[in-house]
Amino acid sequence: MPVWFMRQAGRALPEYRLAKGSLSILDAVKDPSLVAELTVQPVRRYGVDAAILFSDIVVPLAAVGLDIRIVPSKGPVLDEPFASEKDLDRLRPLVPGEDLPCLADSVGETIRALSGVPLIGFAGAPFTLACYLVEGGASRDFSATRALLHRAPHVFAELLDRLAGIVLEYLSVQVEAGVHAVQLFDSWVGVLSPYDYAKAVLPATRRVFDDLAARYPSVPRVMFGVGTGELLRLLTSTGASVVGVDWRVPLDEARRRIGPHYAIQGNLDPAACLAPWPVVAEEARRILYQAGSAPGHVFNLGHGVLPGTDPGILAELVSLVHSEGRAGLAGPEQA
Amino acid sequence: MPVWFMRQAGRALPEYRLAKGSLSILDAVKDPSLVAELTVQPVRRYGVDAAILFSDIVVPLAAVGLDIRIVPSKGPVLDEPFASEKDLDRLRPLVPGEDLPCLADSVGETIRALSGVPLIGFAGAPFTLACYLVEGGASRDFSATRALLHRAPHVFAELLDRLAGIVLEYLSVQVEAGVHAVQLFDSWVGVLSPYDYAKAVLPATRRVFDDLAARYPSVPRVMFGVGTGELLRLLTSTGASVVGVDWRVPLDEARRRIGPHYAIQGNLDPAACLAPWPVVAEEARRILYQAGSAPGHVFNLGHGVLPGTDPGILAELVSLVHSEGRAGLAGPEQA
Repeated sequence: MPVWFMRQAGRALPEYRLAKGSLSILDAVKDPSLVAELTVQPVRRYGVDAAILFSDIVVPLAAVGLDIRIVPSKGPVLDEPFASEKDLDRLRPLVPGEDLPCLADSVGETIRALSGVPLIGFAGAPFTLACYLVEGGASRDFSATRALLHRAPHVFAELLDRLAGIVLEYLSVQVEAGVHAVQLFDSWVGVLSPYDYAKAVLPATRRVFDDLAARYPSVPRVMFGVGTGELLRLLTSTGASVVGVDWRVPLDEARRRIGPHYAIQGNLDPAACLAPWPVVAEEARRILYQAGSAPGHVFNLGHGVLPGTDPGILAELVSLVHSEGRAGLAGPEQA
Repeated sequence: MPVWFMRQAGRALPEYRLAKGSLSILDAVKDPSLVAELTVQPVRRYGVDAAILFSDIVVPLAAVGLDIRIVPSKGPVLDEPFASEKDLDRLRPLVPGEDLPCLADSVGETIRALSGVPLIGFAGAPFTLACYLVEGGASRDFSATRALLHRAPHVFAELLDRLAGIVLEYLSVQVEAGVHAVQLFDSWVGVLSPYDYAKAVLPATRRVFDDLAARYPSVPRVMFGVGTGELLRLLTSTGASVVGVDWRVPLDEARRRIGPHYAIQGNLDPAACLAPWPVVAEEARRILYQAGSAPGHVFNLGHGVLPGTDPGILAELVSLVHSEGRAGLAGPEQA
C-alpha cells in the first residue's frame, strides 16, 4: 500500500532546517536545487512512495504581484485584505513563464533527483487561497471569508473564478514539467456548509480539475481539505480522482460517503504521531482495518506533519504500512 | 418557536461596551449588578426567549487559583500550559461558596432583572477547558491537547475527571440559584475523531450531566460544540436533553444523526448575519424548513454572534423565527 505524508519536509526534519537556513519559503522556492533537495529529503528519511513538490500555498499569489509574505509561527500575511469588488483589480492572471520563471526547472531538477519516485504537484484551491486574501492571514473560522460569500456573492464568485485561473496555470506548468499527479489543498473548506460549498465554491474548484483533466487526462487529481466530513460526497464532484480525508471521519464511514469509484487518502491523526511508537502502531492498524482489503487506499496523515514529530516514528510508520498494508490486512486480529 | 443567540451580549452591542467599559471579563463577573445588566441587554434588544448568564469559559479555572487571564483579541492565556502529570497538582477542586462568592448572587439578581424570561446557566465542558490548559490559549487545531490524549492517556483522563468535578460544582451553584437550564460548551471537541471522543472525553462529560441530572432532574441540559458532525450521535450519550449543531451540518441531516428523542438547537451561520437582511431571512427560512414541523427545535446561530453584527438584523431574525417558526412552517413555499 502506498504511503506519503503531507508537509512531510517542512519543519519536522533537522536537515530541512539546515538546508533552508533562514531563507523565507517564498525565496527558497526560487532556487531549483534547493527545491529538489527539500523535496527529496523526506523520501530519503522515511522511504515514502511519493514526494510532494516543496512549495507554499501562497506562492502563486505572490507570483502575480500581491504583497503577501510568510511570517514565522504566524503564516501568510497580507496587510490589506480583500474586502470589496475593487480589490479584484489586484488579482491579475498568472503568466507562468514570466511570473514563475524557475518553477519548471525546479520540477525537472526534483524529478531527476528523485530517481523514479513519483512527484506530486502542489497548489492551494481557490477557496483556501481566497481565505488568505480576505482574512489577511490565518484564522480559526474564516468568518470574514464566509461573510463575503454571503454578503457579496458575485464578488466572491469572481474572486474564486480568477483564483481558479491562476491555480490552473500554476498546476499546468508543474504537469508540463513532469509531475506524476497533483494535489489541490482546499485546507479550510471544511468551515462551509454543504449548501454554501455547492453553490459558491464547487464551480471554481471543478473548473480547475476539469480543465486540467481535459489537458492531461492521465494525471491523477487529489483533493484534500480538513474537517470536510459533510462535504465528502460533494468533493467527488470536483473532478478529483482521489479524495483526502482528515482524521475526524473514520475511514469506513468516509468510504460510504465517497463511494467505490474514487481512491481515498488518509487519515492518521498527526497529533497521534507525537505519542510513543506502540500508540502510533495501534492507530495505524485501526486505519488499515477500516480501509479494508479493497484497493484504492493511499495511506497518509489526516493533515500535515506537526513540528516536533520524531522522524524515526514516521519511518517506522512507513515500514508498518508497507508490510501490513501490502499483506492485505483484513482485520485487527492479523495485526 | 424559541430563539436565542450564543455570545448574544458580548462585543456586538454598544450598550455592552458602555456598561462593561475597560473591565476584564474576569472582574466583570464578580459584580452581580453588572452581570445582571449584561445578561439582560440582549433580551431587551432582540426579544429573545432566553438569556444566558454572562460569564467566560475560564471563570471556574481562575476561581481555583490558576493564573489564567483574558487578553483582548487573543482570548484566554495561561503562561505555563499543562504538559505532564505533575501539572495535575495545580488543579484543586472548586469550593463554590469560597471560590465564587458572588455567583449565586449574580444568578439571583439576573433572574429578578429578567422578569420571567428563562435564564440558561453556562459552563465550558471538561475537554474544552483542558484545551485552554494544555495549549495555554486559543489554537486552530488543539494539536497539543490531541497529542496529550494519545501520549499520556491516564494523565488526560485524570485531567478531564478533575475538570468534570469543577464544572459540576460550577453548574450546581447556578442551578441552586435558579437557572432554568444549563448549556455545556464543548466548543472545540470537534477536533476529535468519534473513537477518541468516545474513549477519552465522553466519560468525563457524561459524569457532569449524569450527576447534574441526579441532583436536578427537571433542569434541561444543552450540549454544544463546533464542527461536531461526526460526533452528533455520541453527543446524545452525554446525558444531554438538547444537542446544539453548528452551521456545517444541515438540520435535517443532524436530526437523522441525533434521532427523535432530543431537542436540536441551531444552526444559522453567524457569518451570514453580516449580510443584508434578505440574505439572512433566506438562510433562516431554509433552516426552519430543514427543521420541519416536528417540535423540539430551538433556533440559534451555529456559534456565537460575531463582532460587527448589526443588532437590528438579529432583532429582525427573532421576529421572523417567532412569526414563521410558530406558524409551523413546513416548506419554503410558505415563506
